[in-house]
Amino acid sequence: MALLSRHLTLSLQRNLRLVTPGCRYVSQTATKTVSEFEYDAPSMKTPVPGPRSKELTRQLGEIQNVGAINFFCNYEESRGNYLVDADGNRMLDLYTQISSIPLGYNHPALMKALANPNNLSAFVNRPALGILPPENFPEKLTESLLSIAPSGMTRVQTMACGSCSNENAFKAMFIWYKNKERGTNDPSPEETSSCMINQRPGCPDLSILSFMGAFHGRTMGCLATTHSKIIHKLDIPSFDWPIAPFPRLKYPLEEFVRENAQEEARCLEEVEDLIVKWRQKGKPVAGIVVEPIQSEGGDNHASPDFFIKLRSVARKHGCAFLVDEVQTGGGATGKFWAHEHWGTDDSADLVSFSKKMLTGGYYHRDELQPDKGYRIFNTWMGDPSKNLLLSEVLNVIRRENLLEEVTRSGKALLQGLYELQSRYPHLLSRARGQGTFCAVDARDDVTRDNLLLKIRDKGVLLGGCGEKSIRFRPALVFKEYHAHQFLNIFNDVLSEYK
Amino acid sequence: MALLSRHLTLSLQRNLRLVTPGCRYVSQTATKTVSEFEYDAPSMKTPVPGPRSKELTRQLGEIQNVGAINFFCNYEESRGNYLVDADGNRMLDLYTQISSIPLGYNHPALMKALANPNNLSAFVNRPALGILPPENFPEKLTESLLSIAPSGMTRVQTMACGSCSNENAFKAMFIWYKNKERGTNDPSPEETSSCMINQRPGCPDLSILSFMGAFHGRTMGCLATTHSKIIHKLDIPSFDWPIAPFPRLKYPLEEFVRENAQEEARCLEEVEDLIVKWRQKGKPVAGIVVEPIQSEGGDNHASPDFFIKLRSVARKHGCAFLVDEVQTGGGATGKFWAHEHWGTDDSADLVSFSKKMLTGGYYHRDELQPDKGYRIFNTWMGDPSKNLLLSEVLNVIRRENLLEEVTRSGKALLQGLYELQSRYPHLLSRARGQGTFCAVDARDDVTRDNLLLKIRDKGVLLGGCGEKSIRFRPALVFKEYHAHQFLNIFNDVLSEYK
Repeated sequence: MALLSRHLTLSLQRNLRLVTPGCRYVSQTATKTVSEFEYDAPSMKTPVPGPRSKELTRQLGEIQNVGAINFFCNYEESRGNYLVDADGNRMLDLYTQISSIPLGYNHPALMKALANPNNLSAFVNRPALGILPPENFPEKLTESLLSIAPSGMTRVQTMACGSCSNENAFKAMFIWYKNKERGTNDPSPEETSSCMINQRPGCPDLSILSFMGAFHGRTMGCLATTHSKIIHKLDIPSFDWPIAPFPRLKYPLEEFVRENAQEEARCLEEVEDLIVKWRQKGKPVAGIVVEPIQSEGGDNHASPDFFIKLRSVARKHGCAFLVDEVQTGGGATGKFWAHEHWGTDDSADLVSFSKKMLTGGYYHRDELQPDKGYRIFNTWMGDPSKNLLLSEVLNVIRRENLLEEVTRSGKALLQGLYELQSRYPHLLSRARGQGTFCAVDARDDVTRDNLLLKIRDKGVLLGGCGEKSIRFRPALVFKEYHAHQFLNIFNDVLSEYK
Repeated sequence: MALLSRHLTLSLQRNLRLVTPGCRYVSQTATKTVSEFEYDAPSMKTPVPGPRSKELTRQLGEIQNVGAINFFCNYEESRGNYLVDADGNRMLDLYTQISSIPLGYNHPALMKALANPNNLSAFVNRPALGILPPENFPEKLTESLLSIAPSGMTRVQTMACGSCSNENAFKAMFIWYKNKERGTNDPSPEETSSCMINQRPGCPDLSILSFMGAFHGRTMGCLATTHSKIIHKLDIPSFDWPIAPFPRLKYPLEEFVRENAQEEARCLEEVEDLIVKWRQKGKPVAGIVVEPIQSEGGDNHASPDFFIKLRSVARKHGCAFLVDEVQTGGGATGKFWAHEHWGTDDSADLVSFSKKMLTGGYYHRDELQPDKGYRIFNTWMGDPSKNLLLSEVLNVIRRENLLEEVTRSGKALLQGLYELQSRYPHLLSRARGQGTFCAVDARDDVTRDNLLLKIRDKGVLLGGCGEKSIRFRPALVFKEYHAHQFLNIFNDVLSEYK
């Protein structure tokens, strides 16, 4: 608990009054409402899923596999941080559609944008952006995506989803690598004829290096770099690409600096070995892809030093460096991009995004731009209606200083988790996080899954990740008192837990 | 010209008065307006791209590769079949954003749907459909996508785009194939451990059989089955999957029945040989993917008999059969699905779609449904706001009998193309089509590209496909008089062509 200042610890205790396990004290902070458009607390009417959700699940089961369905939602009635389900249960949502709702539900700014008649055309006339963009496209990109471009990047390509973003970022790396290798943009006749039948040299044996525990999507290119859960991978053909160990650090990071640095050095060494080995195999590594925090894989952090060194290793071996910010990007770590915490201006060659950004896509350095049109291409290449909503989101983030709010509420959340894990060490450990992008481990997977259900029945929606972690992915409008609201409920659940 | 009835030929001549080459007679039909919301003719103010488009291309060039940009559009001012560009040029659009605009621009029914306050929530609260669907989701799927489900299919999975649709349809085939092979849904410990590191047996060496000239998307799984253009494939690693020849037929099909049947038999034989060969190689074919009309590859048709036999070959060898209707689906062939022209109730195991359907996705038979949740999964799994717009599109198609209209205007278009190719045999050949989904070949690629530019400067937007084909992809609101309007302009261009 070294990193908790005395002041903050005291204020936490004052707010939460987590004095006697089992006793619930709702702090004053926890009852304050964020704004008129939000509710003030969870309100549960049935266990979740309730009877209406169960009936709808049965109906949907006639059409699709419903094995992953949690419950059905009433999005019209949902507001801000509160998700209302089909049975009228109102939950504090710390999962936000797998981390993809930036401003909570039905944010007034977004509703207003949609009600504006000038915006209708963007929603009904979806263009083929790569050939016939709307006339405001350069301006809209400049005022939205480029206004938050990672350092060193003035170029961005929109895409429809996270997987397509990574697939196309991979392709950009392959194209860049081959042009570099052949020293010209003009392929040989052998290359042009062989590529049409999937054969070398036109379809070269290049590889992407990824990490154990990584998640980069589930289309077949991305999936070859995803290594977080069996259910993602089983039965799908893949590529023989190198997979490095991702550091397994001890938390809190500040208490295990030396051991963690050793672990990171071990992983970096392994990365270099793999790059050499795959080059010798005839499958050179064109690029490295990494998440700033491995998210699906269990909220695994690494130090800025690790990432900066990894980026150097990539450069040393002539590999492009892609930072996948699909889950970490958009502000939840307290900075717009998680890699900004590394404190360097030269973080990456490409940065992919989606989820909270509402549109998919990737930024890249000039040299990663394909040399010709139609090399990176598909029908839609994104969706201007999502760019339009993103502009509004960015306006709200700036107007309401939401990144500062995230930093503040994230501190309250993480401090509360520290407090709870020291109170319930048999149940919780390894609390960690940046901004509100936090996690804590349960004793085991069964305990984790049970805790999630109990917390949900008390009105808080959360998700799991990795083997036994609970992940926190609230919207950017999550405030300190929402953190306290959750911590009170979590304390109740833990104190009653057998 | 055997298939042109005397009556139709006469009516065509009456309407077009294509009597003297070089003389332009605008028929009465060609001046009628479709409805109040549309313009009545092209109107050109500058060459295309005009100065404003050029300036915007320069601006966008600072952000992206603009090698594929045609011009910039004013979507607000576009109406029905007419696309207005940034320089105020108004073009009859026979390309419709690479065949992805079902009802033309700014259709009143879609504008109305968007202005309806009850619909706002669907646009601002994009859910993670696989875990937390909106309560109206089963009902909306039933009234939209399932109301037009291909015969034998009661199940549908939405996705964000065409590539993701095919990627996930491929995955469904792999999962189905492996479960069938192992005789149980429970993988072995060897499978579960090896899949995490991309190795057999967990990531098996299965393959998908595709055809030369095919286009199924450009993410890495799809791309391994795409074989239409070098620019799609070059420098991207791929899979060693079998590629069969697609029939190269002679047109009009009705005049070359015997030769075409022989060509189709040759291709089917090759398909069987490849399936056997790849099984022997240890890379069994889990599925076959085919377009009902090869679109990007040059509008290559095959007979119903070919597809029915191909489907039988798939079944005989235990392969799943996926019909990719991303470009052909949605009504342009005069039936909702192009495969309905095959006249069988047992066309496929899976049918994928996107483009005119506004949402991506695929239908499938019950047995292709994955056995567990999270096997076919991603964050968004489609977008309910697109389903909502699709519902409106389907209402309009039914209310206005648009499939009949497409059949009628498609006949006028194809008959006009027959007429023009007999008038200009040194320039045009191989006119072909189903509904308005038509194409004609130019003498060579240079002529084709030149014709497209000249036609555009006279106010008609068209696209190429294959080596030297011009493809017609108008919206479903394209009427007979739009066909005549185009044919008049095309005749002018051809008559002046050196």
